[in-house]
Amino acid sequence: MGNDIPKNSNMEVFETLESEVRSYSRGWPAVFESAKGYKIRDTEGREYIDFFAGAGTLNYGHNDDRMQEKLIEYIKNDGIIHSLDMGTNPRKDFLEAFNDIILKPRNLSYKVMFPGPTGTNSVESALKIARKVTGRDTIISFTNAFHGMTLGSLSVTGNIFKRRGAGVPLADTVFMPFDHYIEGVDTADYMERYLADNGSGVDLPAAVILETVQGEGGINAASMDWLKKIHALCKKYDILLIVDDIQAGNGRTGTFFSFEPAGIEPDIICLSKSIGGFGLPMAVTLIKPEYDQWAPGEHNGTFRGNNMAFIAAVEAFRYWKNSDFENSVNEKAAYMAKEIERLIRTYPGLQGSPRGRGLMQGIAVGKENLASEICAEAFRNGLIVETSGPADEVVKFLPPLIIDKAGLAEGFEILEKSIQNVL
Amino acid sequence: MGNDIPKNSNMEVFETLESEVRSYSRGWPAVFESAKGYKIRDTEGREYIDFFAGAGTLNYGHNDDRMQEKLIEYIKNDGIIHSLDMGTNPRKDFLEAFNDIILKPRNLSYKVMFPGPTGTNSVESALKIARKVTGRDTIISFTNAFHGMTLGSLSVTGNIFKRRGAGVPLADTVFMPFDHYIEGVDTADYMERYLADNGSGVDLPAAVILETVQGEGGINAASMDWLKKIHALCKKYDILLIVDDIQAGNGRTGTFFSFEPAGIEPDIICLSKSIGGFGLPMAVTLIKPEYDQWAPGEHNGTFRGNNMAFIAAVEAFRYWKNSDFENSVNEKAAYMAKEIERLIRTYPGLQGSPRGRGLMQGIAVGKENLASEICAEAFRNGLIVETSGPADEVVKFLPPLIIDKAGLAEGFEILEKSIQNVL
Amino acid sequence: MGNDIPKNSNMEVFETLESEVRSYSRGWPAVFESAKGYKIRDTEGREYIDFFAGAGTLNYGHNDDRMQEKLIEYIKNDGIIHSLDMGTNPRKDFLEAFNDIILKPRNLSYKVMFPGPTGTNSVESALKIARKVTGRDTIISFTNAFHGMTLGSLSVTGNIFKRRGAGVPLADTVFMPFDHYIEGVDTADYMERYLADNGSGVDLPAAVILETVQGEGGINAASMDWLKKIHALCKKYDILLIVDDIQAGNGRTGTFFSFEPAGIEPDIICLSKSIGGFGLPMAVTLIKPEYDQWAPGEHNGTFRGNNMAFIAAVEAFRYWKNSDFENSVNEKAAYMAKEIERLIRTYPGLQGSPRGRGLMQGIAVGKENLASEICAEAFRNGLIVETSGPADEVVKFLPPLIIDKAGLAEGFEILEKSIQNVL
Amino acid sequence: MGNDIPKNSNMEVFETLESEVRSYSRGWPAVFESAKGYKIRDTEGREYIDFFAGAGTLNYGHNDDRMQEKLIEYIKNDGIIHSLDMGTNPRKDFLEAFNDIILKPRNLSYKVMFPGPTGTNSVESALKIARKVTGRDTIISFTNAFHGMTLGSLSVTGNIFKRRGAGVPLADTVFMPFDHYIEGVDTADYMERYLADNGSGVDLPAAVILETVQGEGGINAASMDWLKKIHALCKKYDILLIVDDIQAGNGRTGTFFSFEPAGIEPDIICLSKSIGGFGLPMAVTLIKPEYDQWAPGEHNGTFRGNNMAFIAAVEAFRYWKNSDFENSVNEKAAYMAKEIERLIRTYPGLQGSPRGRGLMQGIAVGKENLASEICAEAFRNGLIVETSGPADEVVKFLPPLIIDKAGLAEGFEILEKSIQNVL
Repeated sequence: MGNDIPKNSNMEVFETLESEVRSYSRGWPAVFESAKGYKIRDTEGREYIDFFAGAGTLNYGHNDDRMQEKLIEYIKNDGIIHSLDMGTNPRKDFLEAFNDIILKPRNLSYKVMFPGPTGTNSVESALKIARKVTGRDTIISFTNAFHGMTLGSLSVTGNIFKRRGAGVPLADTVFMPFDHYIEGVDTADYMERYLADNGSGVDLPAAVILETVQGEGGINAASMDWLKKIHALCKKYDILLIVDDIQAGNGRTGTFFSFEPAGIEPDIICLSKSIGGFGLPMAVTLIKPEYDQWAPGEHNGTFRGNNMAFIAAVEAFRYWKNSDFENSVNEKAAYMAKEIERLIRTYPGLQGSPRGRGLMQGIAVGKENLASEICAEAFRNGLIVETSGPADEVVKFLPPLIIDKAGLAEGFEILEKSIQNVL
Repeated sequence: MGNDIPKNSNMEVFETLESEVRSYSRGWPAVFESAKGYKIRDTEGREYIDFFAGAGTLNYGHNDDRMQEKLIEYIKNDGIIHSLDMGTNPRKDFLEAFNDIILKPRNLSYKVMFPGPTGTNSVESALKIARKVTGRDTIISFTNAFHGMTLGSLSVTGNIFKRRGAGVPLADTVFMPFDHYIEGVDTADYMERYLADNGSGVDLPAAVILETVQGEGGINAASMDWLKKIHALCKKYDILLIVDDIQAGNGRTGTFFSFEPAGIEPDIICLSKSIGGFGLPMAVTLIKPEYDQWAPGEHNGTFRGNNMAFIAAVEAFRYWKNSDFENSVNEKAAYMAKEIERLIRTYPGLQGSPRGRGLMQGIAVGKENLASEICAEAFRNGLIVETSGPADEVVKFLPPLIIDKAGLAEGFEILEKSIQNVL
Repeated sequence: MGNDIPKNSNMEVFETLESEVRSYSRGWPAVFESAKGYKIRDTEGREYIDFFAGAGTLNYGHNDDRMQEKLIEYIKNDGIIHSLDMGTNPRKDFLEAFNDIILKPRNLSYKVMFPGPTGTNSVESALKIARKVTGRDTIISFTNAFHGMTLGSLSVTGNIFKRRGAGVPLADTVFMPFDHYIEGVDTADYMERYLADNGSGVDLPAAVILETVQGEGGINAASMDWLKKIHALCKKYDILLIVDDIQAGNGRTGTFFSFEPAGIEPDIICLSKSIGGFGLPMAVTLIKPEYDQWAPGEHNGTFRGNNMAFIAAVEAFRYWKNSDFENSVNEKAAYMAKEIERLIRTYPGLQGSPRGRGLMQGIAVGKENLASEICAEAFRNGLIVETSGPADEVVKFLPPLIIDKAGLAEGFEILEKSIQNVL
Repeated sequence: MGNDIPKNSNMEVFETLESEVRSYSRGWPAVFESAKGYKIRDTEGREYIDFFAGAGTLNYGHNDDRMQEKLIEYIKNDGIIHSLDMGTNPRKDFLEAFNDIILKPRNLSYKVMFPGPTGTNSVESALKIARKVTGRDTIISFTNAFHGMTLGSLSVTGNIFKRRGAGVPLADTVFMPFDHYIEGVDTADYMERYLADNGSGVDLPAAVILETVQGEGGINAASMDWLKKIHALCKKYDILLIVDDIQAGNGRTGTFFSFEPAGIEPDIICLSKSIGGFGLPMAVTLIKPEYDQWAPGEHNGTFRGNNMAFIAAVEAFRYWKNSDFENSVNEKAAYMAKEIERLIRTYPGLQGSPRGRGLMQGIAVGKENLASEICAEAFRNGLIVETSGPADEVVKFLPPLIIDKAGLAEGFEILEKSIQNVL
């Protein structure tokens, strides 16, 4: 993020008492106070359009009325707040609603695991069960993948700076080229070259893990053909396919699961971020019944039963009872694509190229620091938008899915003004 | 947990839709509905005394009135719910209150890191920064340690069943004997034997990580002398000392930090569970300023800013503004110790021995399955209490710290009846 | 190797007393007695042309007269046989001759390390010093590489069957595609794609290790252009380049070092096999002086001073005092290439393609088991020749370099007859 | 070794051309020329008594007449020198003689594996087969163990300086305390405490590897009781027992195998050093037939068939045809023990304590550098003797087993004079 942002005296507490590891409070030096829908307000009364959505956690916007209501009611009734994996009404309701509204209509059958309330917990549990079930060690991940910051998830994350943070070598993983990684090379074929060759040095893996659209890695969207090919390779070589749908799932690309248009069925699916509906910590790992070979308690975690998140999650599922929501996301995604195209055309100084799909799109720009400067300027002008990619080269648009056309238009207006100012 | 518990038809949803990994809902086959203070109610109207406190997450009891009030108010005002590590009022308030009420009066100075909202996130971040700062790989942990289920935390966890769940070898760790592990051996001296010997095979570690009272490992309380010796060894050999105070901290043993009576200052402290006050997911990693050498964003996580938890946490600190709460915990701990002693004396069939300190105590029993049977019978009689230890040999008492004498007495009454029934 | 070879009662001792791991004595079921030049005799008086040369260890043929003489004289004089790395005359003579005859005329400057008398010892020492000097962990190796069977060398070896033999995951290595590995892809460019990308998941490596001609991996010869590109990449990214010249060095490809035609200077070179001249165990690791940062004794080994091998090695260097030997190897290599071409043309049933360079060539055949059958039949007809490649798909020709044209011709005659019989 | 040794101009070649890793040529700055029995001569005509025996490789002394004869004869007859694991007469003779003379009379049954000609090759192969057979990863080794310098062997070697040379973390090993490591603790009981405890953090190992007398680690001799206990633990917990008898075997402690007096049968035995009789590179791995589960070629190595070593080895076995040799070793060992006791008594300035058994004994001294100074002075006075132990605190006596009493007496005379000079 930009460095030329004026000092905000409100930020002193964070600078003095909080660890140097803090990041967003550096790029967006404000104290945020309230939010509704796709708008955020800071303590000085400034309002921002949200093209960030809590890094994909607030697909249903801020402070959805019905979720607020249900949560307040639950608290007032002395509802069980913390319950590990004990039986509670909200947990029961979540399991039923998820099965009835999400899985069944898509002809999917998965056992639901609560691995702890964060994405990295879900990824770690997916890697563990894949290794247990297959008796193998290696996991194939892809260039520019991001799966989390605990040791197992970090081992399948591509970012070198973040990997180095482990302080120890990250083992048992191989990084294959993601779709489009090398011009003119079908990277699925390339991967099969390794799998088919007894001398390739790549041991038969337990699993392949992938994001269909790489969020942190630069809004790289895999083609449906490529996903089908990878899925077929997994079947052919008896490898489990894990789809990390933490950022791209929950409707972000237009369908509930991001892989639906490819017609594939992963063996394991990781969900977090917007699964909790309201922005509360929650994660699930979906496991095909035949691979649900856990012993009781073999993976656990104190916060694996966040009842408040279950309640909001159930509310969120109402968006999926018919196809209206899905249709509206797709319309807005088309609008966004057009806006991106227009900006790239209008401002050749961007050396821009479009990225992504659904409401997970971006503009990759051609000059160093340019994306960061645009985001910093956008913040000054009232738009919250962040960069992505290994060189922070992508301006990334992740508005709440419930945003309306007016909000989108206003966001792109601020963005355009910011581009003009920066160029 | 016991296997002879009658089927509860309410549990079918969990059995059908949830992963085999679920555990507490097997031992306590009920759907829990509401809770207040130290009491829990299930959907069939049964009431239970809580000697479990969410595995140490509910030190301040269920649904504290003032926390409820503050949370409802925040939601009503459209407060920012999810914010990663952006600046918000609740995060600011938490940092200030923690510094003013907890750190300063104890003459402690730490930078506060929000590593993600679970204990294992805190442990992973602690291991990372210790390795970065020292440039070394090895971590010394102790027999029967429990630090979490993600790959890094699991590597310092002693339980073999849980370790095996990783599916890959767990590297870069050495398990030294905890205090009292071998009769007649001063295990701190033993550890120094290894550190001082250039041929011991134990490479100079980045850090030593320990719990002062091992919660999952069998309520093993280290003596203050041993803690001092380990602390001195760390200083002597230039090793960082990490105290995982996730279960034993937050007042559980009588002082806010469990190591206070030893007069030591760890280099890194992990807090979670009850730090969030209300049972909401939250964790912090405290790092001595000189070791806070993170680069911005070197560790991150989507849910590292759980504002609802910050609000409840600040409310919880009111318990620490004077010494009343601390004193009451110590009184109740003394009462608990006496009750334990009495039960061991009265029921020689237990072959019991006392464990732990503060409101983190237990009875280790001498016969296989006996502890599980007692807990199952206690559940039937209206007491929630679980086992602990590598062979589930300990009945573990972790009531909310706010329990009153009457509650404690009632709990022990049920326990005694259950012991009688089982023996 | 073929399974239809008749039982040889002489082999019973091996079958009864030796481990199941034995391999060559299965494919060539004979007890060998004596050998001279390029001919071997078994105990039943059968004579074989040697197109194998001890897997590249007998470049100077069997029982070179002058080596025999020198060795007998040394033994008779009670010369020091075993000396670790103490000073002895043969060690001194070797160091001087190697420097004067091999290094200086090629304008090369390396410190000579004796890492233990086998190739894998040399590779292990190379990996260790590369990691020490750079402070990094990762090593880049290539598909179908073979570097040895101890844990470090095995981790950079591509063969999956042999890797699995480790019984533990092999860490800290990445396998890049060797030259020509993927049709139409410049694999050096591909490798740079990974190195240049901060998100590729491939951490900056300590070293790249390669064979210029992969012996066990299928006689895959890298082009000089590719070697230059890899060398340039190493310079650009500050990575050490290790050339494992254990099989391809010692004149096997026509020059003493196999990389000479590329005009590159590796940072570390591994030599073994024919460096000992007579077939006696010996290995050296050549290290650029600026990287010779070992502490005394940081790597050692009981047999790192094999004086008998030093004596024979010095004799072997006489072949390199002028260019006659080199020229003769090149002539024979050209003859071999022609013969290979002719066989492929004449026998389309082979679906053959030529492999390799120098006197390290082969025919890759298109049908499963065909190469093994040809080798088995050749053995029955008096030619010792083995297969290579991840699917044993290459018939590999490695005659002693001192073979004459008549010997080569006779060998290819037997080969042709064997091909006819098998097809 | 001592630093005050005068420059020897003969050593310049080594200083200039050889790697900094060289060690013995620093402490013993001479060029050695010839040797017979227990005496060595340098190029300047100085004679030395050998109390070092090539670090245990020359148990049968230098240049045994009959071995010389047989080797010369074989070379003269153009015997096969290099043969990988093809059948040859010397290999056959070795297998038969080893079985008939060594194994059968001791009621032992092992398959013989030729893993490559060095000790570390044998250890690596032992670890591999143990992991394969059990399907487990962890190996238990002991404090101050030395097993070799390649990555697998180094991982079970205790010396921190040598471990650090790996440049990567050494995984999958646990270091238990060797016999007598902690005063007053039965370390076998201690080890069982870990094995029996499901929470100890020590995963069930594939194997335990040990030396009965730790040569490099300080001449620490395990008691027969301790060996029996460790053996029984291995049986009880279904763990393979590997005895690394590379230095302590081949008669060094009085019996052919060092563990014979304990009456135990290891599952795997590593032999090297003196197994080759004449000081030529050779190693074998002995595997109980039921564990010989190698696939053909799953482990290999170019120099695994060193025929010259086989020939000398067979000659060496003549020493074991009756008990004379064994008896003489035991007599000399008793003499050595008395001399050590006398020196310790006579020179209290040594603060000496005796170490070891058989002809593998030493004096541990109480002052830093003292052992090194004694060895340096001994060298100046004509005795070759080295230090051992993690702090080089032991003067280590390893004369050839064929030494006579006069030789021993002369050696101890020089030693005593050197002690006097140094103190």
